[in-house]
Amino acid sequence: MDKFYIDRIAIVGVGLIGGSVASRLKRQHSVGEIIGVGRGQQNLEHALDAGLIDVAVTDVRDALDANMILIAVPVRQVESVLKKIRTGRNEKILVTDVGSTKGDFAKLAREIIPERLGYVVPGHPIAGSEKTGSRAADPELFDDKNVILCPLEETHGEAVSAVKGLWDSCGARVVTMPEAAHDKIFSAVSHLPHVVSYCLVEMMNRRSDASELFDFAAGGFRDFSRIAGSSSEMWTDICRANRTHILEDLEAFIGNLKNIQGLLRSEDFEAIERIFNDASTARNNWASKQ
Amino acid sequence: MDKFYIDRIAIVGVGLIGGSVASRLKRQHSVGEIIGVGRGQQNLEHALDAGLIDVAVTDVRDALDANMILIAVPVRQVESVLKKIRTGRNEKILVTDVGSTKGDFAKLAREIIPERLGYVVPGHPIAGSEKTGSRAADPELFDDKNVILCPLEETHGEAVSAVKGLWDSCGARVVTMPEAAHDKIFSAVSHLPHVVSYCLVEMMNRRSDASELFDFAAGGFRDFSRIAGSSSEMWTDICRANRTHILEDLEAFIGNLKNIQGLLRSEDFEAIERIFNDASTARNNWASKQ
Repeated sequence: MDKFYIDRIAIVGVGLIGGSVASRLKRQHSVGEIIGVGRGQQNLEHALDAGLIDVAVTDVRDALDANMILIAVPVRQVESVLKKIRTGRNEKILVTDVGSTKGDFAKLAREIIPERLGYVVPGHPIAGSEKTGSRAADPELFDDKNVILCPLEETHGEAVSAVKGLWDSCGARVVTMPEAAHDKIFSAVSHLPHVVSYCLVEMMNRRSDASELFDFAAGGFRDFSRIAGSSSEMWTDICRANRTHILEDLEAFIGNLKNIQGLLRSEDFEAIERIFNDASTARNNWASKQ
Repeated sequence: MDKFYIDRIAIVGVGLIGGSVASRLKRQHSVGEIIGVGRGQQNLEHALDAGLIDVAVTDVRDALDANMILIAVPVRQVESVLKKIRTGRNEKILVTDVGSTKGDFAKLAREIIPERLGYVVPGHPIAGSEKTGSRAADPELFDDKNVILCPLEETHGEAVSAVKGLWDSCGARVVTMPEAAHDKIFSAVSHLPHVVSYCLVEMMNRRSDASELFDFAAGGFRDFSRIAGSSSEMWTDICRANRTHILEDLEAFIGNLKNIQGLLRSEDFEAIERIFNDASTARNNWASKQ
């Protein structure tokens, strides 16, 4: 495998993800110039001072001479970024992103830059932390993590290879699948669990005995509810973007809870133990492989 | 506060909880003799070798000359332990336990040793780990953890004080409440989350694309599903013991999920963001106080 090298990359949004990509590329000397694009002056200045980026600009249009644009902003801002990219003369500029849902990004690209789809590579690194901003940048954030790429039918093979090279050089495992498969999988393993955890904590919080409940909540609650501490803005966007799959999974989940409810009502504890046992076996098998 | 001291305590079930109590009492020189009662020969031998217990017996009836009996066996075995305790001549022997549900223990005590209720102190230490057996004994397991005591109407004040002294000396914070209040609180903060986590993992595991789902499950899933790795036997027993409260909470939770389902269907993302935000605020407030 040839060592990855890129002359010029524009990173739109130098936060945890964008900053971590920048720091890895710099550490590996895999990049000529990194243009950081952002609205937060302090954050960009830190990124410059820390050597994560070489140039800081506030408008994507001032970064369109790059070879690749990595869009790493909250999903609400993607539309306006794509509209600015459209104004650039270089139609062969590679466009990739890091959003948690992929169908919506593909749809926006089809609407806004339909003539450039050969160079569009939707992407999703499965990595993160509770920290935000360029100060949280970590060159090892993606080591052994999955990055899903969802090339469109129109995407050129070389475009996929280039973006794969970027993530390979960040230490990630790159997996390719259609955007619909991605959104279906992540609805089940991530989006539904978030909705469920939010819903359970909000229900507890609304009870008249809420303060007593939180007083006695312990380790099991800590683990279960951790994802309910996530950004409500980001997760509302994910619900909007992946609404259809989440609705399907939510319907199935409510059905499963009703089944357990029926078994509890009829005191069929053998069946309940079978369900619990299947779950604990599957969970412990999974955990032993991590 | 006088230093706690007990001449002779019988610990029925020298596992993680029983063994940890033993190791703390020994470390503090707060005990004359510890009689370990158990069925697992290897486990008891380890407890003897490690100095957690002074005497090992296999039958509770051989430990009834103790001042206090701490019942720390799985809840299915509690009934037979109480029946053996009934055979002892000393009606003033203190009887306490460590089960996760308290209404069922109180009910069994009322049925089996009705003439001794003055000496019965149902208890629940909110501490644990994934480890089991006397090898997992940790004298600091209860430091700053809550222990709930649920004295019966009949329980003598001195009996409560003695059991409170035991847990104080283990470093725990002792809280007293009626058994029904205990079971209602723990249904919401522990039992329902376990049922929900089991149900979600079992649903994933039953899907035809299960292996793909588990391949891409990451950090959020790890936290959310950790409690689904718990003992299915123990959690079935908890469902049996606290069935009424769990059914109430499950009904309310299904109603809340249906509400979110309705909001998703009607695309009321403002309302969804409010729910997510209330949950994340409550969760992060809680976490900041831990």
